[in-house]
Amino acid sequence: MTSSMRDVHAEPPAHGNLRLRSVGLSGIRKPLVVQRPERQVTLAVTFRVAVDLPSDRKGSDLSRNAEILAEIVDATVTRPVDSLESACSAIARELLVRHGYASDAFVEASAEYFLNKGISEEKQSFEDYTLLAEARAVRRPDGRVLLERAVGAEAVGMTACPCAMETCRAELVKEYPALAEETYTSLPMITHNQRNRTRLVFEFDDASEIEIDQVIATIEAAQSSPTYAILKRGDEGRVVLDAHRHPKFVEDVVRDLLASVPARFPTLPDSTLVRASTVSEESIHKYNVEATHRLTLGELRRSSGA
Amino acid sequence: MTSSMRDVHAEPPAHGNLRLRSVGLSGIRKPLVVQRPERQVTLAVTFRVAVDLPSDRKGSDLSRNAEILAEIVDATVTRPVDSLESACSAIARELLVRHGYASDAFVEASAEYFLNKGISEEKQSFEDYTLLAEARAVRRPDGRVLLERAVGAEAVGMTACPCAMETCRAELVKEYPALAEETYTSLPMITHNQRNRTRLVFEFDDASEIEIDQVIATIEAAQSSPTYAILKRGDEGRVVLDAHRHPKFVEDVVRDLLASVPARFPTLPDSTLVRASTVSEESIHKYNVEATHRLTLGELRRSSGA
Amino acid sequence: MTSSMRDVHAEPPAHGNLRLRSVGLSGIRKPLVVQRPERQVTLAVTFRVAVDLPSDRKGSDLSRNAEILAEIVDATVTRPVDSLESACSAIARELLVRHGYASDAFVEASAEYFLNKGISEEKQSFEDYTLLAEARAVRRPDGRVLLERAVGAEAVGMTACPCAMETCRAELVKEYPALAEETYTSLPMITHNQRNRTRLVFEFDDASEIEIDQVIATIEAAQSSPTYAILKRGDEGRVVLDAHRHPKFVEDVVRDLLASVPARFPTLPDSTLVRASTVSEESIHKYNVEATHRLTLGELRRSSGA
Amino acid sequence: MTSSMRDVHAEPPAHGNLRLRSVGLSGIRKPLVVQRPERQVTLAVTFRVAVDLPSDRKGSDLSRNAEILAEIVDATVTRPVDSLESACSAIARELLVRHGYASDAFVEASAEYFLNKGISEEKQSFEDYTLLAEARAVRRPDGRVLLERAVGAEAVGMTACPCAMETCRAELVKEYPALAEETYTSLPMITHNQRNRTRLVFEFDDASEIEIDQVIATIEAAQSSPTYAILKRGDEGRVVLDAHRHPKFVEDVVRDLLASVPARFPTLPDSTLVRASTVSEESIHKYNVEATHRLTLGELRRSSGA
Repeated sequence: MTSSMRDVHAEPPAHGNLRLRSVGLSGIRKPLVVQRPERQVTLAVTFRVAVDLPSDRKGSDLSRNAEILAEIVDATVTRPVDSLESACSAIARELLVRHGYASDAFVEASAEYFLNKGISEEKQSFEDYTLLAEARAVRRPDGRVLLERAVGAEAVGMTACPCAMETCRAELVKEYPALAEETYTSLPMITHNQRNRTRLVFEFDDASEIEIDQVIATIEAAQSSPTYAILKRGDEGRVVLDAHRHPKFVEDVVRDLLASVPARFPTLPDSTLVRASTVSEESIHKYNVEATHRLTLGELRRSSGA
Repeated sequence: MTSSMRDVHAEPPAHGNLRLRSVGLSGIRKPLVVQRPERQVTLAVTFRVAVDLPSDRKGSDLSRNAEILAEIVDATVTRPVDSLESACSAIARELLVRHGYASDAFVEASAEYFLNKGISEEKQSFEDYTLLAEARAVRRPDGRVLLERAVGAEAVGMTACPCAMETCRAELVKEYPALAEETYTSLPMITHNQRNRTRLVFEFDDASEIEIDQVIATIEAAQSSPTYAILKRGDEGRVVLDAHRHPKFVEDVVRDLLASVPARFPTLPDSTLVRASTVSEESIHKYNVEATHRLTLGELRRSSGA
Repeated sequence: MTSSMRDVHAEPPAHGNLRLRSVGLSGIRKPLVVQRPERQVTLAVTFRVAVDLPSDRKGSDLSRNAEILAEIVDATVTRPVDSLESACSAIARELLVRHGYASDAFVEASAEYFLNKGISEEKQSFEDYTLLAEARAVRRPDGRVLLERAVGAEAVGMTACPCAMETCRAELVKEYPALAEETYTSLPMITHNQRNRTRLVFEFDDASEIEIDQVIATIEAAQSSPTYAILKRGDEGRVVLDAHRHPKFVEDVVRDLLASVPARFPTLPDSTLVRASTVSEESIHKYNVEATHRLTLGELRRSSGA
Repeated sequence: MTSSMRDVHAEPPAHGNLRLRSVGLSGIRKPLVVQRPERQVTLAVTFRVAVDLPSDRKGSDLSRNAEILAEIVDATVTRPVDSLESACSAIARELLVRHGYASDAFVEASAEYFLNKGISEEKQSFEDYTLLAEARAVRRPDGRVLLERAVGAEAVGMTACPCAMETCRAELVKEYPALAEETYTSLPMITHNQRNRTRLVFEFDDASEIEIDQVIATIEAAQSSPTYAILKRGDEGRVVLDAHRHPKFVEDVVRDLLASVPARFPTLPDSTLVRASTVSEESIHKYNVEATHRLTLGELRRSSGA
């Protein structure tokens, strides 16, 4: 009897014939150090990494995935990378190198990201956002590897409902008919407002780069108002007024967000796919309201006449 | 060599001398059928059940906990119980019966609960709430079993901030000085409003009973406004107006809630402990704001002069 | 000044030209009563319902979505439906009826589902599963409505790793060379085993029906072993032995699951899409391992030679 | 009409007489830079900060809480602190300084923490843990501030069940009676094993310090085995063997953990409260099994004869 270990993964499967689209690790947490223009940032990232599996092989060598993450991600503690997205691309490429039997490799990553912001210079504070990155490496029959990437962010802000504003106005006109008409045309009306989470993600089939702080700024400009950790009494009023002067349905958030992309990201190619989605955690309902859209930057430019 | 099974649980522990406060099951999901005055309700309950463990015993017989749940909870499909809380009490008592070595048994349960509600008769719809119940059975040295119980609920509603209302009023007076003073004294002012989750729980050391729909109604009356699944255009305005006419800090929600308890639950004994807590998912911040308090109904009656 | 309310939703959007793929409600919870062959079951369902929005319209009439849910879902308390899936289909169709401007309606639903099971007749208990259903209604230019549906379930079971089994065997042979070779060829070897969640979902473009308890049985047969709430001492051994005699990678779970579908669902058409996915919450790692595949039943039948 | 803003918070409450135990912020996320002996670590922390509120005051000045967090926590990006716990203590003290009306301040914090570990020197990788810290500052009538602190961690590891091991042994003896008795006395037997989460927290009423990596090492020593991100084929076998040679109930994990504390933390005072809790995500059940205990280090020393 020999004690040599069988390589069970490399054996043929009991129920063969089936290639599997994806086999990998999920929920794996890692610190990633990113060198930003002005500072180093440590992200706590949740990764999902996977490759396809041919029909003649029982198992995927999953320990290689953990090794790749250790080599590429853990190493950033001493050698920071440019971005979460560049780490994902490097991981996707390396997955194909070490899984010689695979032709498709996927990496998904999300991480919390803090930006120093504030309603004024003296009231800066770290606000938290979510970074999103994906990379897919595809091995072509000729051995070339194609890379598809997605980069984006989610920001929490505020929406104020334009519809309830009108119904409140109509109700108040009835209740207080003596007030000047100017009251109702100039004063911002009460409405329901709420926490809103909005995502903007770009999908690239080329080497385009994007500045993530610009993505976050673009999202916050499309909400009724950004939100802040530090708001003294007068500041609260400014945010509330700002939100009520920019009332938005979730539909408006997605459309305004998409409509602002061509001017804010002028150099990206027409082939870029743009995904926008938003969720308002309605204050007048126990459920959420959401909207989503996806189109190419070319379609977007044509639709906006840009 | 004998094949008879050792009862590993009953053996002495490797590191003895330590009684353990609590050993049990958590995250166990069960359907519980409750007979309400007018209808049967099926609750999907999450249970936590545990007993203490004496120092001379290695393990708790946990399969008994699962058997007790099957016997008491699963059986309600054919023989409904009165309430989630009565099921918890029965389970706590039975835990002491079957764990003869234990002197302390705990049961915690939470369940989603639907009530048909609406802003008007024609717009009724099921709204979702959370029921909370706890039971603790303590075996006294003389063999008597004492029972402590907690019963309560959580309701999602809406709060509108009274402070931002004042700062907005002050700002608008400056911006629109020509409007009549009456405008600012009579018109409800804009503010931030948000989803609010509030809990009210009663702890009993006697056999007091409480009507859970009354607990939910008490909570909703203490928020700036309840919320509803179905709101047509005019209804939205009514909810928004209602909330802005009852602006509340989280502090107000807890105090108003507690202050309303003596009148709404007149028959409960002074020894009843009342726990109130509330969380507002602030629309102008990315974080939540919360308040909590706990006191006896006797203290509450004296403080409110009731 | 008139107090008549503007219909803000029907106004043109500020940033027009963009049709939106999806606008709707999410996280809306409802009780749904289903008439099963032998009993009534109350499901607590989480719904997501949405329609597309043409470019000339500012907002979607979201209150109609809540009304449809109230009418179709709340009504099952007195008039049960056949299945979660049939409720989703009815909702999707009704979304198109009430949103005359929409051509695409989506419904997603998930619900906890309890089945009475046990390792033996006397140890039956409710085990919890997750039901999954989706419906998409598409309005064709000629006015006809096409319906696509997905129906499936998730079951929690157990997997035991076939690879660690071999490495443990090899190690033990080295440590205990005096033991008979038969020991190592006949005795089930130690390995890591863990909680596993597996999903099987069918996508139909026709009126095919499926029995959900059969879907759950199919999943449980593909795991190393099902798991049970009540296991007395000897039963635990049976489940552990069963799992160690059917050691499976996540790859094996997906392949065995898919391979079993043709025989277990012989009447479904070749055009049915079959989605299988599995997640093992690894006991020897802090992360999960997962596998997924998707193919038509026709492809599956050809690959398995069925 | 004056535009000066009312200080709504400082007004008396509508329903007075009630002091509130706790009013504050929760779910506030912040990056905290900690200087460890050998490296800087950036933690992403979730804070809860609150103070009590006297009965004559309507609201707590919550913006001060956000300012304190910005000043103490955000500042660590340029001036790292010693530990999460020292930041909590500083925040608790400052809460009392800025809320002059309060006499009780609470801070709770949890953060993910990465440690470079591995089954061998060449297979090091970042493993993730959770840090826990609490601080409570109490203002005495004489103006002195007392500080209570709690510090601890949670680690994910593996448990193997000692009971199923015996029942499997008994079953296999019956099935394979021809195998030598030595087989069953020497070979580690199969059992169910699973992901286990264990916490150890120390509560101090003095200025005691504790090394958090030592807390984590203490927890991992009490589980059946630690777990690792990178395990090549042979390593998996080592971890599995290690776990099966240290089979543990949740009861054993808590007792072994507590029993090891006196020797591992010899300098802490007897008044230290020690809290231990553990959750095993059972592979043979859909629910979890848990155990918890809490006692003073003095009691622990006496019970263990140390």
